[in-house]
Amino acid sequence: MQSKSAITSVKIHDIIQTRWSPRAFAADKAVSHEDLLALLEAARWAASCFNDQPWRFVVCDKNTNATSWQNAYASIVERNQLWAKNAPVLILAVAMANFNHNDKPNRWAMYDTGAACANLSLQATALGLIVHQMGGFDAEKTRELFHLPHDCTPMAMLAVGYQADVDVLHEDFKAIELDQRSRVTLGERFYAGQWGKGIE
Amino acid sequence: MQSKSAITSVKIHDIIQTRWSPRAFAADKAVSHEDLLALLEAARWAASCFNDQPWRFVVCDKNTNATSWQNAYASIVERNQLWAKNAPVLILAVAMANFNHNDKPNRWAMYDTGAACANLSLQATALGLIVHQMGGFDAEKTRELFHLPHDCTPMAMLAVGYQADVDVLHEDFKAIELDQRSRVTLGERFYAGQWGKGIE
Repeated sequence: MQSKSAITSVKIHDIIQTRWSPRAFAADKAVSHEDLLALLEAARWAASCFNDQPWRFVVCDKNTNATSWQNAYASIVERNQLWAKNAPVLILAVAMANFNHNDKPNRWAMYDTGAACANLSLQATALGLIVHQMGGFDAEKTRELFHLPHDCTPMAMLAVGYQADVDVLHEDFKAIELDQRSRVTLGERFYAGQWGKGIE
Repeated sequence: MQSKSAITSVKIHDIIQTRWSPRAFAADKAVSHEDLLALLEAARWAASCFNDQPWRFVVCDKNTNATSWQNAYASIVERNQLWAKNAPVLILAVAMANFNHNDKPNRWAMYDTGAACANLSLQATALGLIVHQMGGFDAEKTRELFHLPHDCTPMAMLAVGYQADVDVLHEDFKAIELDQRSRVTLGERFYAGQWGKGIE
């Protein structure tokens, strides 16, 4: 199975170095409840502004709650459905608009939700699971299907499961599954003391 | 020195379990350039929507660029300055408003920036460093001092360094440094298949 270690100038921790977002899921391998709890606990202990924990996750496990999985799947864009169909677990990640303690807008809600999902994804890597996060889903449809409150923003759909060989993929995705992972150079995103001055 | 392992129902990976946000920094311990690069590489390899990498980081190292550190420090709220003064490195994390490929609004920019900062923080834990992320800074001031472009949002100031004993802290922060870390119960944030139904 395809593995893709990040190419870095210095060593970084294994679970960060080897995490990537495969599309080839093993349709017949369920995620155990214990492993699922570990993913959620990892997200739960992420940092957040005022420790508000502005994230909400709706876990849709095909093997224990087929209806919820079907709802999650139905909200994914067609192109992503081609591969996400094999993911045994789909998780909807939602950011609450306002702080708990004063009901005022929380400008870090999305930022913190992203952090929680990063933790979840790294925990998955640690357990030999894979996660592919999608922005390609219909947020309004998830509002309806999951009866979300008005004061939140659906941020991502996370496909979770075990990796399979590239052969399980629709033709359209085989090449990309085998491609090298890529990032722009460090200096294009990380600056030394002043805006635009790439760090070396 | 104070360590705070997350209390979880199932085992999670060490670096996720033990990461927390101390305020007690060792003023006399610089972060090596190699370790700094490792933190940035960890952030660099986070997932992002369309692989846009919408984050930008301005790294302000007191030991190599005192002016930039002073600018970062000056934008922190007074209360946080009481402890952040000892952090040898301050990093401003910024989210770009629009996608690179089409210049249209990127609704995942903050989410992805939060993910990159989560990676950075976990890499710090792996290296024996500490990170304390702050929302408590003057975003407008960072725009001026760092000449940020208009189409971005300053999201967080990250204090980075080595942990010191609680004694280095101003009285106001000693108790909180020794407190247990806390999170609401899993079921309050993580739902089983439908909104509000806490997972068990």
